[in-house]
Amino acid sequence: MTKTATPPSPRTQIRRVRERGHYDQKTIESIAQESLVCHIAFADDQGVHCIPTACWVDRGNLYIHGSNVSCMIMALMAGEASVAMTHLDGIVLARSAFHHSMNYRSVVAYGKFEKVESESEKMESFEAFIEFLSPGRWSQVRQPSRNELAATTVLRLPLTEAAAKIRSWGVKDDEADMHQAVWAGVIPLSMEAGKPEPDAGCEHMHAPQQPSSGA
Amino acid sequence: MTKTATPPSPRTQIRRVRERGHYDQKTIESIAQESLVCHIAFADDQGVHCIPTACWVDRGNLYIHGSNVSCMIMALMAGEASVAMTHLDGIVLARSAFHHSMNYRSVVAYGKFEKVESESEKMESFEAFIEFLSPGRWSQVRQPSRNELAATTVLRLPLTEAAAKIRSWGVKDDEADMHQAVWAGVIPLSMEAGKPEPDAGCEHMHAPQQPSSGA
Repeated sequence: MTKTATPPSPRTQIRRVRERGHYDQKTIESIAQESLVCHIAFADDQGVHCIPTACWVDRGNLYIHGSNVSCMIMALMAGEASVAMTHLDGIVLARSAFHHSMNYRSVVAYGKFEKVESESEKMESFEAFIEFLSPGRWSQVRQPSRNELAATTVLRLPLTEAAAKIRSWGVKDDEADMHQAVWAGVIPLSMEAGKPEPDAGCEHMHAPQQPSSGA
Repeated sequence: MTKTATPPSPRTQIRRVRERGHYDQKTIESIAQESLVCHIAFADDQGVHCIPTACWVDRGNLYIHGSNVSCMIMALMAGEASVAMTHLDGIVLARSAFHHSMNYRSVVAYGKFEKVESESEKMESFEAFIEFLSPGRWSQVRQPSRNELAATTVLRLPLTEAAAKIRSWGVKDDEADMHQAVWAGVIPLSMEAGKPEPDAGCEHMHAPQQPSSGA
């Protein structure tokens, strides 16, 4: 398995707890690909904003979409952004308060979003989004009309200036605390799909496959 | 039940899909209180950053912590920030691609983090954090030493300039698409705790209560 080693840039270099940092494209994309939601930091004349939005990954790019008149979409076309995708995988309960921690996989990416200009690429990106939400669904739904496409802006960020951070291990207590009479270990956490809730008229149809991902 | 109505500021006013916006303190705090992780947007001389970090809420304030020498902690003491907490509650699968959506509860807050200066308030805030991770645990763990307290910075953001956004309903398709032969409905999503994974020596002890929260 080849890994594309992306050297960290000054702003993607992990400085705290360096053993959690990963810069290879495979790790970065695998974490991003599982994300249904990302958080985007950007600045405008009101200061910095942190806004959650739906996302999907296709061929090494992170995609988001929004109304043409969304303040965030307009600000992202004007300036740089930072995007984070985070999966919380567990709570690490240590014997000392100080060593409590969390297991997680996160990616932080930097760059300027590009507008997807062509109607055909916009359509392909929506196909990738719907297929991500529910594999096989694109051919079954009513596809976007020209008016719907025209009202929506799709933005793309190449995941090139990015770093992943992963903690995926157990408790790390100090030797001096090992006698402490308290349970220590990891409570795993994961995003789970519940029983599908059909819309009126769909009660007797087969519910689709669950999404392939966490949050 | 009284609600404190917080009038939206120019930057917390929800402009897109206004019926999803909520500005009362009760709604804002209830969403924030369930969050184990927040995403923080801030700017420094390298531009904007979006960084995930652990968080907890105590008496109307959002708390985070980090090493005294963390770049983020230092930047947050110097300037304004925006913080988002998001719970993904479901995927809304519509009959038309355009009306696919997500159910979620999110809070976006603005302001400048304040440093918790006193050792006693720092200790109280850690107690609130450990009790949030696992109720009843604070009295059982080895509590922070003076050196550990001194190495850690705790920051607090009052949740006063904040807005919540909630989508919690089913499919909203256009009348013209209701004949489309595809399952439509909501796939609920939730963060679930798995089987506790005890550290060496804790296999025969009772695992603690699950965290009271989602992500």
